[in-house]
Parts: sequence; C-alpha cells; structure tokens
Amino acid sequence: MVKIETFEIDRWIMTHGPRAKHNLASSYCASISVNELSSLSTADDGDKDPWTSLLATPMNYGPLKGSEALRQNISNLYSKESPGAPAADNILITPGGSLANFIAVYALVGPADHVIVQYPTYQQLYALPAGVGAEVSLWKAKEDEGWALDVDELKGLVRPNTKMIILNNPVNPTGTAIPKSKLAAIVALATHHSITILCDEIYYPLFHSIPTTDPERPPSILSFGYKNVIVTSTLSKAYSLAGIRIGWLASHDPTILDLCINARAYALITVSQLDDQLAAFALSPPRLDTLIAKNITLVRRNLALVQELIDRHPSICQWTPPVATPIGFIKLTRSGRPVDDVDFCIRLLREKSVLLVPGSKCYGNGVEFKGYVRLGFGCQTEQLREALQALERFLEEEYALPVL
Amino acid sequence: MVKIETFEIDRWIMTHGPRAKHNLASSYCASISVNELSSLSTADDGDKDPWTSLLATPMNYGPLKGSEALRQNISNLYSKESPGAPAADNILITPGGSLANFIAVYALVGPADHVIVQYPTYQQLYALPAGVGAEVSLWKAKEDEGWALDVDELKGLVRPNTKMIILNNPVNPTGTAIPKSKLAAIVALATHHSITILCDEIYYPLFHSIPTTDPERPPSILSFGYKNVIVTSTLSKAYSLAGIRIGWLASHDPTILDLCINARAYALITVSQLDDQLAAFALSPPRLDTLIAKNITLVRRNLALVQELIDRHPSICQWTPPVATPIGFIKLTRSGRPVDDVDFCIRLLREKSVLLVPGSKCYGNGVEFKGYVRLGFGCQTEQLREALQALERFLEEEYALPVL
Repeated sequence: MVKIETFEIDRWIMTHGPRAKHNLASSYCASISVNELSSLSTADDGDKDPWTSLLATPMNYGPLKGSEALRQNISNLYSKESPGAPAADNILITPGGSLANFIAVYALVGPADHVIVQYPTYQQLYALPAGVGAEVSLWKAKEDEGWALDVDELKGLVRPNTKMIILNNPVNPTGTAIPKSKLAAIVALATHHSITILCDEIYYPLFHSIPTTDPERPPSILSFGYKNVIVTSTLSKAYSLAGIRIGWLASHDPTILDLCINARAYALITVSQLDDQLAAFALSPPRLDTLIAKNITLVRRNLALVQELIDRHPSICQWTPPVATPIGFIKLTRSGRPVDDVDFCIRLLREKSVLLVPGSKCYGNGVEFKGYVRLGFGCQTEQLREALQALERFLEEEYALPVL
Repeated sequence: MVKIETFEIDRWIMTHGPRAKHNLASSYCASISVNELSSLSTADDGDKDPWTSLLATPMNYGPLKGSEALRQNISNLYSKESPGAPAADNILITPGGSLANFIAVYALVGPADHVIVQYPTYQQLYALPAGVGAEVSLWKAKEDEGWALDVDELKGLVRPNTKMIILNNPVNPTGTAIPKSKLAAIVALATHHSITILCDEIYYPLFHSIPTTDPERPPSILSFGYKNVIVTSTLSKAYSLAGIRIGWLASHDPTILDLCINARAYALITVSQLDDQLAAFALSPPRLDTLIAKNITLVRRNLALVQELIDRHPSICQWTPPVATPIGFIKLTRSGRPVDDVDFCIRLLREKSVLLVPGSKCYGNGVEFKGYVRLGFGCQTEQLREALQALERFLEEEYALPVL
C-alpha cells in the first residue's frame, strides 16, 4: 500500500464506544433480534420459521456469489422502484457494505487513475482510492446551501484520466440526499466521459423526510440504466440488522462484476451461510416492508426530538435537517465561532457519558468541519430521550461558563 | 492496484463446481450442521443450547475486534500447545482466513518492499504482495525431496528490503508440513534480519499423520515467541464449519495488530454476530476436541483409500503422501511424462462428473506443476469411495487408449 490513513471514526468508536452510556455515535436503526425478525411474519406466511431447516443444513461454503434467494430478493428491492433493476446475477454478496466499497475500488482503481469523491462523506470512500495510489479530488458540498452539490464544479474536476466518481447517497454524515435531477446530470456527465460511478447507497431507502410523491426523491442510481455504475448497500443501516453482516454490490456491467468477483476472491470465499439465509428472510415480504415502515416511523419521531433540542438552542446549534438516514451533522458555535469539536466530545463523554462523533477529526482530516458533531438518532426513542437530556444539560452547563 | 491476477482456483471451482457430482476440489473436512455441532455437547455441559440467548440478542454490530469469548477460546487453542500463546487481546477476528491474509499484506507491505513466499502455495499468498506492487521471490519446495524446503536457499533470497516472509504450514496443495526444527531456523533468520513472518496456518492443527510424540511435529509458529510474526487461521478447514465464516489473525506485536486493525476497518466493521457466537461455542470443550478427533479419524480413513488407488497405479500416479490437511498433490504421468492436467480435469469432469483442481493452472501459473492435480479427501468416506471409483474408471479407460 502507498499509505493507509488512520480510519478515524472506527478508531474513535472503538476507543470511546465501550465507555459510553449514551452512544449517539451509532449510525443505524435500533437493532432487532432474530426472534423479533421472525415475529414480523404473518400468519399465512410459509416462511415463518427460518430456523428448522437452517440449523439442519451442513455448514459448507455455500454459493460463491451468495445464495440465489438472497440475490433475487435484493434485485426485487430495486425492481419495486423502477424497471432498470439489476438481475440477481448482477448482484454480488459481501459481508457488509464496507467490503463492497473496498472491492469496487480495489478491482477498478489503480495508481495512474484520478478519482473524484463527493465530500464530506465516509472516510473510506476517499482514503481507499488514495491508498491504492490514485489521485483524489474532493467534490465539496456547500455547507451554506444545505450541503448542495454543484454539477458545474464536478465538470471542472474531470480530467482525461478520471476513472471513477464516488458518490454517497443518502449522505453520511449530513443525512441529506442528492436529488433525482442532479443524479441524472451526474450520470449524463459520467456517460459523456465514460467514467465509472461508484455510489455508496448504504442508507438507501431510509428517506424519512422526502415524500414518495416528490419528483426529486432520489431513486437508486442503478435506475438510470447507465452500465458503468456500481452500487453498494447493506442490511446494516435501514433494516435494523447490523449484526447480520450482509452487504452487496450491483452493476449492470458483466465486465465490472467479473473484475469485482476476482478481486473479492482475494478477500473472501463466501459470506456467512446463516447470515445469507437470514438476510434473504428479512428482505422478503412481509418482513421487508414492515422493517422499513417501522424504521421510518422511529426515525421521524426521533428526528423531532433532536430538532426540538436544536430549536431550543438556536444560537449555538445549527444544522441542515437530515431528510434520510438516522444521522445528522450539527454545527456547534460559541459567540458565533465553531467550538473545538474533539474537545467538546471528549468532555461530553467524560461528564455525561454521551458519545458523539467529532466532525473535524472523523470527516474533515482535522481541517474542515470544525465545530461539527455527527449525532445518530436511530436508537430506541426512550434511549434517545435520555441521551438528549444528558447532552442538553451539558450544553447548558457548558455555555453558562464564561469564555476563557 | 498495480495488477490483480485472475484467482485461478476460485474461478475454477466457481465455473466447474456446480456441475460436479463428485467434488474432490474441496479442501475442507466434511461439513456439519449447527444441530450436529450442538449434539457434540455432553450432558453436563452448561452451553448445550447456544440458540435461546442468541436468537433473543439484538443484532447490533457487536465488539469491533470480535467477542472476548471467541478470542479467548482461540487463545486457548495455542496455549494448550505451548506457553507462547497470544492473549485474547492479540487476536483479531475476520470473516474467514482469506481476509486475515489480505489484511496482513495490505497493512504491512508496500511497493518498495521485497517479499519471499514459500512455493507452491495458495495463489493468494504470492499474488497479494505482487498486487500491492511489492517484488516477490518464490522460495521453492523440492518436488523430488518430498516438497522439502531448504533454509540455505531462503538465506540466499533475503535482500536489504525484504519486508516479509510468507509461509503456509501445513501446506496447500501438498498436505506436507514444515518440521519444527526448520521453522526454528526460519524464525532465527527472520529475527537476524528483522523480517516479518506471515504464516498461513489455515489447516492447523489437522496433522493426521504426524504423531504427537514426534519432536519434529510443527507447533504454531507463534510458539517460538518471535514478536514479528502474524499467524492466520480459520474455522473452515479443520473444524467442519466452512459456512461459519470465522477466521483470525494473531500476533505478539501490538504495533502489527494496530496496523492490522486499521487496515481491517477499511474492509469491514465487525463479523457476523451469529457466526462469532457459534464459533466460540464450537471452539470450547468438549466440542473442540471432539471435532478435531472426529476429523483426524475421517481424514486418516480417507487417506488410506486414496493411497490404495495410487498404489494400484504406481506407473501413472505418484505423490508425497500428505501428513496434514485433507488435500494432496498427485502427479499424473503417461509414459513417464506429465499429462496435460487441465485437459485431464476437464475430461474427467465431463465423462465422470469428478472435479479435481489442475495443478499447473491453479498453482503453477501455467508453467510449473504440469501433470499435477490437487485431490481433496475430506468429504464423507462413502462419497469419497464413489468419487474414487469414478476417477479410477476414468484412469483405466484413459490409459487403455494408445498415445496419440
């Protein structure tokens, strides 16, 4: 490797997570157990008990690309939305979304390449191409315009050797989304220059604050039918099953898939057979629709609590309200200037046992997003209420102190 | 990536495996189900049912490095053998042994480095360092001396920039083992030059034909206490649980572990929570000892059947009998010259539905090991008997034909 940066958010959560009573650093919807998953079945559902046959199945490696049933159910997720869905054969199962991103970059990007990455986003997405020696340009969202992205700026970043544009929609850490018309413009640009798009749709379809009737509600980028696209996603965020380690990558292009299958062979043989079967069970009706509906309701209710806290402290807390994902990016200021977000998080943890993610450290390479914290609000509502109370007490005590 | 070679054995098995009635391309011991695993518990074993609590556990990400219980049980595997065992904290869980190897190379090897790799071995082990741009030298085992390795030759391969020596013990595809005194000599050499050793011990401790009293029976290379060592292993081969995707890497050196933890964060967050708990269950007494004893018995019985077949055809089949692993590397000759192993395997599959692994394609880069096939004999004995009968019929028909 040319270099591997410290993966700041992973390090942060590993270091501080175990000590936190109120963990608002998490980025997923409240986890359910397998029993709870089973209870989402209906009386006339033949699959009510996924266990009996699973426990009696010899634990061999299973199918290399993932089971047909799971890949078909994932294909159905996309075909519900538009006719441009990938077939089951165009889907490759991975043990989580991270490895799907890893494989896509590892398979397709090399040292002579240029890669453009939407920013801010999950550190993996810009550190991976830099790690394999590619040149990386950041396509920066506009903080003062609700994290809007300007496609004209993207055009200006394209070079003759631009191999890949990496997107993240919905966006970690802001919880915003790239609207449909802008996705179309990005696809048109990529098509014109024959650039591969890798779109991390890890939080898809958790659009809690964009009506289904909104013409700008973003579909999966697969739906535009551009061949040169890879989409990655996972069971971890929207489906309450982070511990079932199933992610996937999908592409319309058999050549891309073939390169990814080969790269994947260097990292794993197959995924967990129990997880594969349970994921297929979770992603089939009626459980699928129930899970999403349940989590949309949870996240909307929780978002209202966070918004109320922010509204009570307008001079010190600002954000662009997230429209998707159970996370948001809050800017904390004091006398109009950003606070030291790392110091703030450390003291908040020490004094109130609340864990947040410091923005400058985990998203800004220590330079950008000073004063920002990522707050996850996907936990059970009562847990969130307690955590927000502790956070609010800290804010009140903190801001009662004179500036040093 | 500088380049990613086609992973030949993965491609071979993915392409041909689904069509084979008799799959002797597999490299692991006959798989058992979770129910069978549970049945290995004893009446006074408090853990008899691992399910009740597991199914009621919320499926969150779980501990980043893997559960304490699993890491402790893995530590115990090594401490049973020698006092130099890694502590639970020195063990990092991965979804299979492949990713453990991947992470070790990705974290520690770069383009300016030189790496020495024992050969023949699993393609991943030399293709990975080449893929990150390192220079790779192969340390070749001597075909005519029972695949013995010459440490003087290894000395001659060391350069000022040699970063890593990659070993594989027991060896895939030969089923041989590096004896203890030779391991000690390798460790001494690596210590002298401050070279990191990565040892793939994926088949450990499946020594079916080396008595425990043999002073040359190899321990884990961790037992020599050299700090600069990484060992990788897995539940897949020796423990009949390939579908429970749990592997690990272990090192005495906290700095190495820290680099691996960071590299791992780019590829995954945690492993399957169900697999983690089941692996901890499998690797605790009494199941652990029963599984190993059962598989040693199975593999010895099966090895005898393969040896009988070879003994019936001494002019066309030769091998160095494997002493560990459920695989062996058989050389097929015709009139004293090696057969075309790829063509042989293709026709054997077509005519008798038996799948073997062609040596030159999957281990020799199309150049070395012509005439060799890897034969896996870890399946149930009756299955093996049928497969060997089909193979023998093919041999008899094949060799009855005149040379073209």
